[in-house]
Amino acid sequence: MKIIIIGASGTIGKHVVKALEQDHEILKAGSKSGDLQVNLNDPDSIKQMYEMAGSFDAVVCVAGDGHFGPLNKMTDADFRVSVNSKLMGQVNLVLIGQHYINPKGSFTLTSGSLGDDPVVLGASLSTVNAAIDGFVRGASIELENGVRINSVGPDVVEESPGYFPYFQGRIPVSMHRVAQSYVRSVAGAQTGKTYKVL
Amino acid sequence: MKIIIIGASGTIGKHVVKALEQDHEILKAGSKSGDLQVNLNDPDSIKQMYEMAGSFDAVVCVAGDGHFGPLNKMTDADFRVSVNSKLMGQVNLVLIGQHYINPKGSFTLTSGSLGDDPVVLGASLSTVNAAIDGFVRGASIELENGVRINSVGPDVVEESPGYFPYFQGRIPVSMHRVAQSYVRSVAGAQTGKTYKVL
Repeated sequence: MKIIIIGASGTIGKHVVKALEQDHEILKAGSKSGDLQVNLNDPDSIKQMYEMAGSFDAVVCVAGDGHFGPLNKMTDADFRVSVNSKLMGQVNLVLIGQHYINPKGSFTLTSGSLGDDPVVLGASLSTVNAAIDGFVRGASIELENGVRINSVGPDVVEESPGYFPYFQGRIPVSMHRVAQSYVRSVAGAQTGKTYKVL
Repeated sequence: MKIIIIGASGTIGKHVVKALEQDHEILKAGSKSGDLQVNLNDPDSIKQMYEMAGSFDAVVCVAGDGHFGPLNKMTDADFRVSVNSKLMGQVNLVLIGQHYINPKGSFTLTSGSLGDDPVVLGASLSTVNAAIDGFVRGASIELENGVRINSVGPDVVEESPGYFPYFQGRIPVSMHRVAQSYVRSVAGAQTGKTYKVL
């Protein structure tokens, strides 16, 4: 398969690339680096990325900014960092990408454990993570030509120690387990599913 | 209690008003009618509504526009109808309202069954409904002074026959059961909860 990985150089992305590159052709996409550049906040940039990519079979998104901060200081603008990037960026990857992806292709998006299981400072991420999982369920029953869509919802990962103080009592998940959940979505046959990595 | 009900003249709103007005003082808010006018898409308008309302104990929102249409024609602009109104409108009611509401007050937002249980044409509503329930979980652990937050997630309601063709095989829920779920949130003690009405 030919797979576009958005956020290929990120904490999770580089492990997903390693896990998929043995068996597949990978197009790495990023905001600045990689084979293709894309600004997730801009639908025109997403369209341009697909035009450049040529024919492809799968899209994996492990990118998207979110706001992490206290609710009592949170503003509409703070909240929209998460909504415009992590939520609408990933939604637009699908709304636009559905017109480019090969039959029987797949989209795999990234949500996260905070959707179900919040922490202090995480209200906007709880919102967009739950939103992405809801979008995956909704879109899965309408995508055509056998195209599938799933999300991966990891808890705090072992290579993000900066977040450990905010996730006390959680056991950080291994990069191997996280990366394999993306493999499971791409190589499997399920759709409308969230693979939680807890 | 003094309760602000946004969307008080709507299909669900008028039943929520009836259910709460016997025991409480109600301030009806709407986009055009009611005691207070508010444009949910505009944070300044929300702030102004709270300034006009004076001291209050609870906010119930049964308003917010959403886009209902096919995924294969859906655009960023379509999707943002739901995001800007039903999602960010309700989020901003809380982000702004937390600085005005009385101690031990409550926010009750509206999500819906599509978050868990999608129908064709409903992808953007599945997204924002799930988002609202995620926001409620996230915000519930940060709101201060004993302020609570819940959502009500109804299936298709008996007084919206225009939607029945899109919800075939579902039993439309009674307005009485829906309205009582809002009462349960306002008069109860739970927080971070979604009351599903199925």
